[in-house]
Amino acid sequence: MADVSIICGSASDAAIADKAKKILDEHKITWDYQVISAHRDPDKLDAYIKNCPSGIYIAIAGLSAALPGVIASKTDKPVIGVPVSGTLNGLDALLSIVQMPKGVPVACVGVDNGDNAAHLAIRILKLAKN
Amino acid sequence: MADVSIICGSASDAAIADKAKKILDEHKITWDYQVISAHRDPDKLDAYIKNCPSGIYIAIAGLSAALPGVIASKTDKPVIGVPVSGTLNGLDALLSIVQMPKGVPVACVGVDNGDNAAHLAIRILKLAKN
Amino acid sequence: MADVSIICGSASDAAIADKAKKILDEHKITWDYQVISAHRDPDKLDAYIKNCPSGIYIAIAGLSAALPGVIASKTDKPVIGVPVSGTLNGLDALLSIVQMPKGVPVACVGVDNGDNAAHLAIRILKLAKN
Amino acid sequence: MADVSIICGSASDAAIADKAKKILDEHKITWDYQVISAHRDPDKLDAYIKNCPSGIYIAIAGLSAALPGVIASKTDKPVIGVPVSGTLNGLDALLSIVQMPKGVPVACVGVDNGDNAAHLAIRILKLAKN
Amino acid sequence: MADVSIICGSASDAAIADKAKKILDEHKITWDYQVISAHRDPDKLDAYIKNCPSGIYIAIAGLSAALPGVIASKTDKPVIGVPVSGTLNGLDALLSIVQMPKGVPVACVGVDNGDNAAHLAIRILKLAKN
Amino acid sequence: MADVSIICGSASDAAIADKAKKILDEHKITWDYQVISAHRDPDKLDAYIKNCPSGIYIAIAGLSAALPGVIASKTDKPVIGVPVSGTLNGLDALLSIVQMPKGVPVACVGVDNGDNAAHLAIRILKLAKN
Amino acid sequence: MADVSIICGSASDAAIADKAKKILDEHKITWDYQVISAHRDPDKLDAYIKNCPSGIYIAIAGLSAALPGVIASKTDKPVIGVPVSGTLNGLDALLSIVQMPKGVPVACVGVDNGDNAAHLAIRILKLAKN
Amino acid sequence: MADVSIICGSASDAAIADKAKKILDEHKITWDYQVISAHRDPDKLDAYIKNCPSGIYIAIAGLSAALPGVIASKTDKPVIGVPVSGTLNGLDALLSIVQMPKGVPVACVGVDNGDNAAHLAIRILKLAKN
Repeated sequence: MADVSIICGSASDAAIADKAKKILDEHKITWDYQVISAHRDPDKLDAYIKNCPSGIYIAIAGLSAALPGVIASKTDKPVIGVPVSGTLNGLDALLSIVQMPKGVPVACVGVDNGDNAAHLAIRILKLAKN
Repeated sequence: MADVSIICGSASDAAIADKAKKILDEHKITWDYQVISAHRDPDKLDAYIKNCPSGIYIAIAGLSAALPGVIASKTDKPVIGVPVSGTLNGLDALLSIVQMPKGVPVACVGVDNGDNAAHLAIRILKLAKN
Repeated sequence: MADVSIICGSASDAAIADKAKKILDEHKITWDYQVISAHRDPDKLDAYIKNCPSGIYIAIAGLSAALPGVIASKTDKPVIGVPVSGTLNGLDALLSIVQMPKGVPVACVGVDNGDNAAHLAIRILKLAKN
Repeated sequence: MADVSIICGSASDAAIADKAKKILDEHKITWDYQVISAHRDPDKLDAYIKNCPSGIYIAIAGLSAALPGVIASKTDKPVIGVPVSGTLNGLDALLSIVQMPKGVPVACVGVDNGDNAAHLAIRILKLAKN
Repeated sequence: MADVSIICGSASDAAIADKAKKILDEHKITWDYQVISAHRDPDKLDAYIKNCPSGIYIAIAGLSAALPGVIASKTDKPVIGVPVSGTLNGLDALLSIVQMPKGVPVACVGVDNGDNAAHLAIRILKLAKN
Repeated sequence: MADVSIICGSASDAAIADKAKKILDEHKITWDYQVISAHRDPDKLDAYIKNCPSGIYIAIAGLSAALPGVIASKTDKPVIGVPVSGTLNGLDALLSIVQMPKGVPVACVGVDNGDNAAHLAIRILKLAKN
Repeated sequence: MADVSIICGSASDAAIADKAKKILDEHKITWDYQVISAHRDPDKLDAYIKNCPSGIYIAIAGLSAALPGVIASKTDKPVIGVPVSGTLNGLDALLSIVQMPKGVPVACVGVDNGDNAAHLAIRILKLAKN
Repeated sequence: MADVSIICGSASDAAIADKAKKILDEHKITWDYQVISAHRDPDKLDAYIKNCPSGIYIAIAGLSAALPGVIASKTDKPVIGVPVSGTLNGLDALLSIVQMPKGVPVACVGVDNGDNAAHLAIRILKLAKN
């Protein structure tokens, strides 16, 4: 049972996830790490979300980064999205993550900024503990 | 039983869908029209896809336009995506639709170009009939 | 004593704030509303933050939208940023809000999307109540 | 007689074509490969299109990527366009390929995403075989 | 027999062509005006180019503006391209026109700037007359 | 007591500051150099500004570059901002620095252009000496 | 003999100049107003600069906004540039004004932000008076 | 006495000029090569233009690329502009060159595309010789 679920859309995003893990470890926040593509493993993602005990998601994805939004559509827990840079410098992932329709919010942080995803999760958890 | 399924992510995209319907009607292609948000109605979307007899999808969405990609992840039929313009001129929806990860293709047409979604569907159906 | 502090950088952003207030009201979340420019009223902003009992901030700003980041630098509570569109379609405010340096996170939502700022705040507060 | 015609606008796009060939080979789809510039070899392109037995085109081009659109204007078969990245990160080719006028559709996939061009062709051919 | 051929890709570009005609008239330069889509009327365009007595082309087009490039690929006369603005503010047409491959040059002027297309044609014709 | 205060938002911006120092040295303009993050050290920044004897600030920052604007909001001396490039090529820092609200001006120079920040400071100081 | 010279590149930029004049008037700063295009009236611009008694220039221009840079290349006084929005939302003018080569600095303010040009001029003049 | 004047705004643009020289040499077109900054050497540029016997200019520049426009404002010969890429991928130079005001045309070619500048000059000279 972890405080935070970190999910990457692709194994190639692991370096961004590592930044988040390091910050969470320093603050003694536990995490569970998964690589699940919203587009290629939708059933696995559904199953994970249904049984997930964590209070917060950090979803890391590049390109057409649907992962954070799909998670947000299937849970009412806070979802933090991290856009990953690529050929278009991460602008594609940034817009895909931040421009969510009304009612399905994602908390977007900066391009490749796994650190701030963790820092934001820590602020949210701290509020919950007070 | 329709040839083409037209799905809008929001009722506000109806004008773009109308362009596609008109072209399909002119070519005597039958269609089924739905408004289902990938983000707000994921279960309804899943159910529709499982029972959908159409051979092709036209998915129309703005903002973080996950609809075409989510459909493409749950069917192996061709999916045509139409980005809808908004505050960012449709650049957000265009990048969200076209920049799909490997293995989950979406056939993206131009911003607000419901006509070409229909014309592309017609070309695909014509190939199937030959 | 309110659950959420909504701060606009300019009185002209009030329409975006109204969207957030409406959603919060529907969920019986209390809010305090302020118009304080990070650039023009830095001392007033400091004073407000020091005495603010709310658990979460929603900061709404256009142009070089420093407001969410400045608040995040002076509190360890979660800060949600809403970019407001203008001549550059909100791309300036979006990048100003989301591209924060490591250690000072802001949870950015979509351009002009006051609704999702409220929905995100509700998810965070719900986590805190569990 | 091949199932798919793969045409590059320049020999320098061969690496993107290779990605498509590999996927098609894995699915036992036959292909014919050509390097024909729409701008430098218009007559050769015309001649190829007139005699082409393939059911689908994959057209790969960078810069002002007219190739997919020119092919689509001379055939009524489905044309899949792949934008190739360069100094402007492929944004030029992406917009050139996707923003086609009404009546001349191109199915655009992601920047440098030769894989998805093949996957889309496979979906279209599968529909044709059912 | 006209000095300059003005070709629009769509009848909706006529207002931009009118700006060019007015400047040419003021300088007593004769012009021939056509509306021919590179994508929808490729054969008509070919026939026109083969018999065109004008020394210079002004090609006006929006979206994926292939017209100037296609003309430049079929003549060795100077071709001036004018990008026309639309949903993406003309950025699509601008990049489509200016980013031509080596060996097929187009002289691009500003977005919607039919005036400067005429002024540029006048400079070129003046050089020819000296 | 220096003529110009050079402040970097991060130690990683030092190379841009070095360009400015070199030009100022060549013109025998004295400078004081500090690394103070507007987001991470707001109190240190406040204290520095209150006691700063320099007539001009050069503020160098990347990402969501709030530093120049925050300084401009706490002094009525001229503030020159230098955007630093990163994953988004400096477009984020450029828009964050230049799009200031009315009444809080920042003099923005080009991306990574520490030289011109110094040259601009020299012009301003020369005016003051006349 | 005015404190500040305000020069517009086109009469159509007058509304932006009016914002600057109003602020300068409120601060009892005198100004001289001219409409001189860097591209269409280069000799008039040269003559004006040679005889200009003002200490600071405010140069306002849209499109390929060469005016501020050309002035900066012919004087060693501070030049403030104001980009004016148009079809491309002012991004063209912003980049033209801010991205100056080393040694020829322009102090760029925000798009259409005539107010901040005046406020910046006031800060510079105040420094000169101390 | 050369057919074409090639002017670079900076010695660092020489590689782009070399591409143009090579093409011109192959077509036995003579050229004169200069490095003159519009911003740093305005008087040298003026003097060169006044005495220039060439019929066409090729002006190569990066950043805020005023060079082609300034030349076009001081001659009525055709001026071809080549944007040079840098931190912003050449988008700054492209917009600075192509978005000229009415009456002062520049013939813009693609980013870093010295080849096409030469090819365009050859087309213009060929017209002049017929």
